[in-house]
Amino acid sequence: MLTKLEKELNKVLPRQNVLTDIEERYAYSFDASENQSADSKIADAVVFTETIEEVQKVVKIANKLNIPIICRGAGTNTVGSCIPVAGGIILNFSKMNKILELNTQNMTIKVQPGVTVGEIQNIAEKNNLFYPPDPSNLKVSTIGGSIAQNSAGARCFKYGSTKNYVLDLKIVTADGNVISTGSNTVKNTVGYDLNSIFTGSEGTLGIVVEATLKLIPKPQETQVLMAYFDDINNTIKCVNQIISQKIYPSTIDFMDKNALTTVEQFYPTGLMTDKDSALLIEIDGDYESVLKSKYNICQILTLNNAVNIQYSKNAQDAENIWRARRSSMSACAKLKPNVTTDDIIVPRDNLAQLVKGVQQICKKYNLSSCLVGHVGDGSIHPQIPVDFSDKAEYTNYKQAKIEMYELAIALGGTISGEHGIGLEKKPYISKAVESGALNYMRQIKKIFDPNNILNPYKIF
Amino acid sequence: MLTKLEKELNKVLPRQNVLTDIEERYAYSFDASENQSADSKIADAVVFTETIEEVQKVVKIANKLNIPIICRGAGTNTVGSCIPVAGGIILNFSKMNKILELNTQNMTIKVQPGVTVGEIQNIAEKNNLFYPPDPSNLKVSTIGGSIAQNSAGARCFKYGSTKNYVLDLKIVTADGNVISTGSNTVKNTVGYDLNSIFTGSEGTLGIVVEATLKLIPKPQETQVLMAYFDDINNTIKCVNQIISQKIYPSTIDFMDKNALTTVEQFYPTGLMTDKDSALLIEIDGDYESVLKSKYNICQILTLNNAVNIQYSKNAQDAENIWRARRSSMSACAKLKPNVTTDDIIVPRDNLAQLVKGVQQICKKYNLSSCLVGHVGDGSIHPQIPVDFSDKAEYTNYKQAKIEMYELAIALGGTISGEHGIGLEKKPYISKAVESGALNYMRQIKKIFDPNNILNPYKIF
Repeated sequence: MLTKLEKELNKVLPRQNVLTDIEERYAYSFDASENQSADSKIADAVVFTETIEEVQKVVKIANKLNIPIICRGAGTNTVGSCIPVAGGIILNFSKMNKILELNTQNMTIKVQPGVTVGEIQNIAEKNNLFYPPDPSNLKVSTIGGSIAQNSAGARCFKYGSTKNYVLDLKIVTADGNVISTGSNTVKNTVGYDLNSIFTGSEGTLGIVVEATLKLIPKPQETQVLMAYFDDINNTIKCVNQIISQKIYPSTIDFMDKNALTTVEQFYPTGLMTDKDSALLIEIDGDYESVLKSKYNICQILTLNNAVNIQYSKNAQDAENIWRARRSSMSACAKLKPNVTTDDIIVPRDNLAQLVKGVQQICKKYNLSSCLVGHVGDGSIHPQIPVDFSDKAEYTNYKQAKIEMYELAIALGGTISGEHGIGLEKKPYISKAVESGALNYMRQIKKIFDPNNILNPYKIF
Repeated sequence: MLTKLEKELNKVLPRQNVLTDIEERYAYSFDASENQSADSKIADAVVFTETIEEVQKVVKIANKLNIPIICRGAGTNTVGSCIPVAGGIILNFSKMNKILELNTQNMTIKVQPGVTVGEIQNIAEKNNLFYPPDPSNLKVSTIGGSIAQNSAGARCFKYGSTKNYVLDLKIVTADGNVISTGSNTVKNTVGYDLNSIFTGSEGTLGIVVEATLKLIPKPQETQVLMAYFDDINNTIKCVNQIISQKIYPSTIDFMDKNALTTVEQFYPTGLMTDKDSALLIEIDGDYESVLKSKYNICQILTLNNAVNIQYSKNAQDAENIWRARRSSMSACAKLKPNVTTDDIIVPRDNLAQLVKGVQQICKKYNLSSCLVGHVGDGSIHPQIPVDFSDKAEYTNYKQAKIEMYELAIALGGTISGEHGIGLEKKPYISKAVESGALNYMRQIKKIFDPNNILNPYKIF
């Protein structure tokens, strides 16, 4: 027997684009966050839209029946932004995955939300252009998700977050209309910055159905090096000295001993597992300036007792090093039934305290953690393998998380640099954002989504 | 006899920081926009605050008496954002002009709103750091104004607008409270992006009383070159070819014949006045890569019949070229009793049509215009000397302006890239922004300023 929702959806979408079997609804009711307990709410329906008009029709149904809409790209979200906490319609963008226009002269690309970040990077690169934001899961994660969470990645150090590349968004609003938030120009100071309000709003304010992104010229040369250390103090000293000397690599990333060991155990690429920690440094630019920066960076590394420095000799080498770094979460996932990756950030000069503090907290709670992170930004991703069914361990893990957030805030930082808040960090947002600012955010939500149908109960 | 407002202000501010003489109020009731007609409304008082608490007290008085507050830095605004159209209190930030903290390790600077952009650039540079946004009037214009208008400048081509450098703002809200909009970290994805809502909001949503800005490493080498052309088509071709070849200078700026002639007439620095137009190109980076880019750019310039190329041999040379470019508005101001500088922008591939179209429009209305602009961004600043007391000329000028905006929009662009909307462009915003998006902007204004006391009647 068809539910009312199913009947309505079948009126506006082809049958095959409306999933209502319990197994299907279940499958789309999780993301890469820890919200995977069996008592999570399950979506009422999963739909695949193919046009903007179809999205509008689905929104109108959601309004009519007063049920939520939760947008979904690849479901790689780590904070539970894709979880249907109050049921509702999962709006899956995997069939809106076209690159609509690449304009090499304007250096812009117009895409549908289901295009992966990797595809955008690839087509840009083939045209001698560059889309810098690089979330670790870029091969599968979609640009719609990147915009929703304001994703960044390792290259944010030099190139900034997704927000810096959004020129215009086509948005289906909560009332089913379509608005444009910007323009096709690289600058735009015409009224309030709606692009930035929507970017990072986690699907709570509107539905991104098209995005025009800024590209930049591709750097001529990119090289990667990996340096190992026996003492964490030296590792962090190098980060600080590279910055002090005003060298400007595109990435300064970090892996601790556990991360090195765990990745090498499951995805062997030759990482050195007997060292305390490593820095992955990417340098880009003209060939000559890359060489020079490399030379200067190597001097700093050597003076600070780096015990080994590996250089990429070609693009394949570089890709291998990157793959090792990006595999850390899936490697961790093999250690225990569950794994979580967190995202805390501090002003750079408090980085050493953050790294050591997180390691101490995990030790205190008997958790094994893999620490990786974009340390050039002061950002750390503690990846924690954990067995949620082990109640004592889960309690420990939850307590450790709170202490990590408190530590980041005490060090002048905050609870998310690039993953967002979603469900996971919602209980802690008031520690990071004062009540006055939060109150304005809640009012902004009400303007754009007065009936609270767009990804409700997230962030706040 | 003291007015009620004056009495209230004298209770919370030292006497010398409250100006109420008609001459004083008149002097602070104008900015660099065309809104200079004698029948403009005059401010009821001009105040100089020295602390955040004083700003809060002034806001509370404004609420109590229901009168507007208009913030003012150096008054260099070109769109009338500083004009007290409904009277009220001019809140002058010239006494809140301190650099509060420079943290070279975090590469951040915390400043009061009255600090000039030039001072921020200077102190950054002395510490081997770089604050890229560079409005033409940076020696006098304040960071508070830059944040209000989301100023950009010539280096936006490579480095983006003010918005890209705002990490945190301390805001006195319309109800007199203080909120913080971001954090001291280089990334922050915790709720909605309040930094970007305030940046570019022209003082209509809150009062910026402190700003923490991101700095970046200073490029090792900066060189400037100026290339002259006999044919505008060649000039524009060069812009396109530099971009096509993915060379990434920090600036590609433009001056037309009138701009060259006018600047040279009043501020002689040796500009060639017999040429059709010129490009000013700044290249930065490592010494070797600057040389290489310079070589590649010169090849393009030469192939496109540049008739002369001048190179900066040292920092002083570069500064002279920049000074010439930045003098264009004050040179124009010497031609007629009034001068206006406009700000339109299109996708780069429509640049030639924009430049030629604007020249035709000015010709049609018998206006002499100096065209300068950040053509790498597709942005043009038509600077028009005009005599507002000549009614026919003023009418022509107004009509020309409308046609320029319509042209920019027809070419896929918009009516402001970096100057904002203020009063001047308020009648035209609905041409550039569709009603749905505008409606959301109006609602945002109501959230932050329910009593409409913060710079009212601007933008919308």
